[in-house]
Amino acid sequence: MTKVDQLPQRLLLGPGPSEVHPRVLRALATPVLGHLDPAFLALMDQVQADLREVFGTTNLVTLPLSGTGTAGMEAAIVNLVEPGDRVVVGIAGAFGERMAEIAGRCGAEVVRVETPWGRPVDPDDLRRAAAGGADVIALVHAETSTGVLQPLEPVAEVAREAGALLLVDCVTSLGGIPVDVDRIGIDIAYSASQKCLGAPPGLAPITVSPRALERIERRTRPVPSWYLDLRLLTGYWREGGSRRYHHTAPISSVYALAEALVLLKEEGLEARWERQERLGRALQAGLEAMGLELFAAEGHRLPMLTTVRVPEGVDDAAIRRGLLEVYGIEIAGGLGAVAGQIWRIGLMGAACRPRAVLSVLAALDDLLAAAGFRFERGAGVAAAAAAMAGSAPAAAPGGVRSSAR
Amino acid sequence: MTKVDQLPQRLLLGPGPSEVHPRVLRALATPVLGHLDPAFLALMDQVQADLREVFGTTNLVTLPLSGTGTAGMEAAIVNLVEPGDRVVVGIAGAFGERMAEIAGRCGAEVVRVETPWGRPVDPDDLRRAAAGGADVIALVHAETSTGVLQPLEPVAEVAREAGALLLVDCVTSLGGIPVDVDRIGIDIAYSASQKCLGAPPGLAPITVSPRALERIERRTRPVPSWYLDLRLLTGYWREGGSRRYHHTAPISSVYALAEALVLLKEEGLEARWERQERLGRALQAGLEAMGLELFAAEGHRLPMLTTVRVPEGVDDAAIRRGLLEVYGIEIAGGLGAVAGQIWRIGLMGAACRPRAVLSVLAALDDLLAAAGFRFERGAGVAAAAAAMAGSAPAAAPGGVRSSAR
Repeated sequence: MTKVDQLPQRLLLGPGPSEVHPRVLRALATPVLGHLDPAFLALMDQVQADLREVFGTTNLVTLPLSGTGTAGMEAAIVNLVEPGDRVVVGIAGAFGERMAEIAGRCGAEVVRVETPWGRPVDPDDLRRAAAGGADVIALVHAETSTGVLQPLEPVAEVAREAGALLLVDCVTSLGGIPVDVDRIGIDIAYSASQKCLGAPPGLAPITVSPRALERIERRTRPVPSWYLDLRLLTGYWREGGSRRYHHTAPISSVYALAEALVLLKEEGLEARWERQERLGRALQAGLEAMGLELFAAEGHRLPMLTTVRVPEGVDDAAIRRGLLEVYGIEIAGGLGAVAGQIWRIGLMGAACRPRAVLSVLAALDDLLAAAGFRFERGAGVAAAAAAMAGSAPAAAPGGVRSSAR
Repeated sequence: MTKVDQLPQRLLLGPGPSEVHPRVLRALATPVLGHLDPAFLALMDQVQADLREVFGTTNLVTLPLSGTGTAGMEAAIVNLVEPGDRVVVGIAGAFGERMAEIAGRCGAEVVRVETPWGRPVDPDDLRRAAAGGADVIALVHAETSTGVLQPLEPVAEVAREAGALLLVDCVTSLGGIPVDVDRIGIDIAYSASQKCLGAPPGLAPITVSPRALERIERRTRPVPSWYLDLRLLTGYWREGGSRRYHHTAPISSVYALAEALVLLKEEGLEARWERQERLGRALQAGLEAMGLELFAAEGHRLPMLTTVRVPEGVDDAAIRRGLLEVYGIEIAGGLGAVAGQIWRIGLMGAACRPRAVLSVLAALDDLLAAAGFRFERGAGVAAAAAAMAGSAPAAAPGGVRSSAR
């Protein structure tokens, strides 16, 4: 029989779930309260206020949905979209593709605006697509399948011009880089608890603008999902007034998210973003110093999720297995169109720390050398350490470096 | 700021979430693994096998959905029902009502078969309704809003006669009384982690018969929910073969459910059912000995969830507030049609123990007496203790008992 307390311990450097801070684990283990207990309701208020801070919004409807990030995506789409609506979807990877699929199931006329994986969607392509009319423009802020950052301001401009609502997937971005819902003019954004927020998977924070709420109020058909119906959910999550039971909130998951948000406040949002940026760039410098090729287009690389090409002749799965079995480090392979071609290395949650950057580079140094890949041994660690310290790497003594083992 | 580690501790005797055993809390706090980690996949296999035992089924598709019990209800309905299908729904309380609402959102022709709250649905009423044709017959096994047990065998017979699939809500029954999916012939059943299974809320175990899977395979339209699409979910949860990523499983919640199922196996299903039965009947004996009137019809009372009428002249909310604030005991009020008229007292999860039975009776003894309700002080505790011991209550010395304080 598998025993939970005999599970191995890993360093989680995939695209999520991310490593969870001991304080968040301890919060998880707090005895459960009822979902209408006054003490739990007060905690809900705090979680909502803290989520508004992270999203950069004053939206009253800002709450964690009782599901994972995909539930957030589904909630955003099924509440906003009615059959026959024209939904322009920017597709730059697997999660843009998923948005198009869900919008299609809602009966929308889906207009696909695609771009090669590894690049952001071109706002001009969106503009051309929206010229034929658009009720909603939807796309991903930080595409978890490619490691690409989508600049949002030009897209928001396209949405304004078209009179469309802007729906943005912030699953991987929230807490790791600024999201700025209000400043940019995002109408509905959602995320997931297990990425940069550093809680376990199971909750999907979502925020809804007054304009989006108005659109939802004007629906002519009920939202196809009762579980994710935002009008019903706000009856339970609204602050101050009387709360109406909708479904039993996942109490322990809310505890964990609450504590993760407290950790974020203690560090400060700006400091957290700076840490993500500094360590992400250091990891990328290290990988490049090893002669590996980054996958995401330069200037559009996410700090919290780095994608790198599997070098020619190297067995993708064997390296990942080695990382997991020999070093207890999890990274991820590619999804869909880039399966077998890229690795995805995340620095999220409690794993976003200098030691993790060096660990994964050092382990790759060993395993890639053993696999016959030729590169300057030690260069990755040196470059990353130097980048983290904010200086150029020191030359090795005597300039001698081994180039293979 | 609300602090998670300063939350009060309660004795949870509502209809769920239930008290979580310390071993389950400790499992929750286990460091997180990736959702494709071989060690996590092995744990998933074990959870599925254990759920089959509890459901009484060999259904291959038996897995915990990433949502609460309502997500289980929604998954069962949206996967099985297509627009225009005739769905006969037995409605004996709030959760039957919810089923009808969700089936309606799927575009089903919903045939409502109602019964007064406090009684089970009459199978003959279902038979008459199904005579006009039925694709699905849906109802609740243990109605959480009324405390009523619905006998399933006669309903299964109606479904067989009508050639309809049988969909059963086992949210409150699973783990507390036999469910017997295969023996009875249930096609799709779902539950929730936070009731008699004794884990925190957040997962909805579901089991699907081969016949129901066939119906799902023959759908002419995609399932409206991508998140809850059982065909996609089984790609991730299927045992043995290669697993396809669908969404990030709520790892920590799965740990907790796994440990809760281990606890159940250690005790034994039969022993667990016997304990639920014995303590539930003792609580009911205690309440009646205090002169309170049970709400659910005799012969149809659930052991794990007791409903009792608020006595005339007693303030429902004041008593519940007193229980919570003075004694740290949570019970629930009535929902919908019986709001303010009944209390719901659960004995589920770790709270199903003799001490809890006596605690709530003793606290009610105090608070009801203070509220001016006239009854024999101490009679509730005595009757319950005697019932748990399997004997009649001993008479008080000298036959003298106070009748009010």
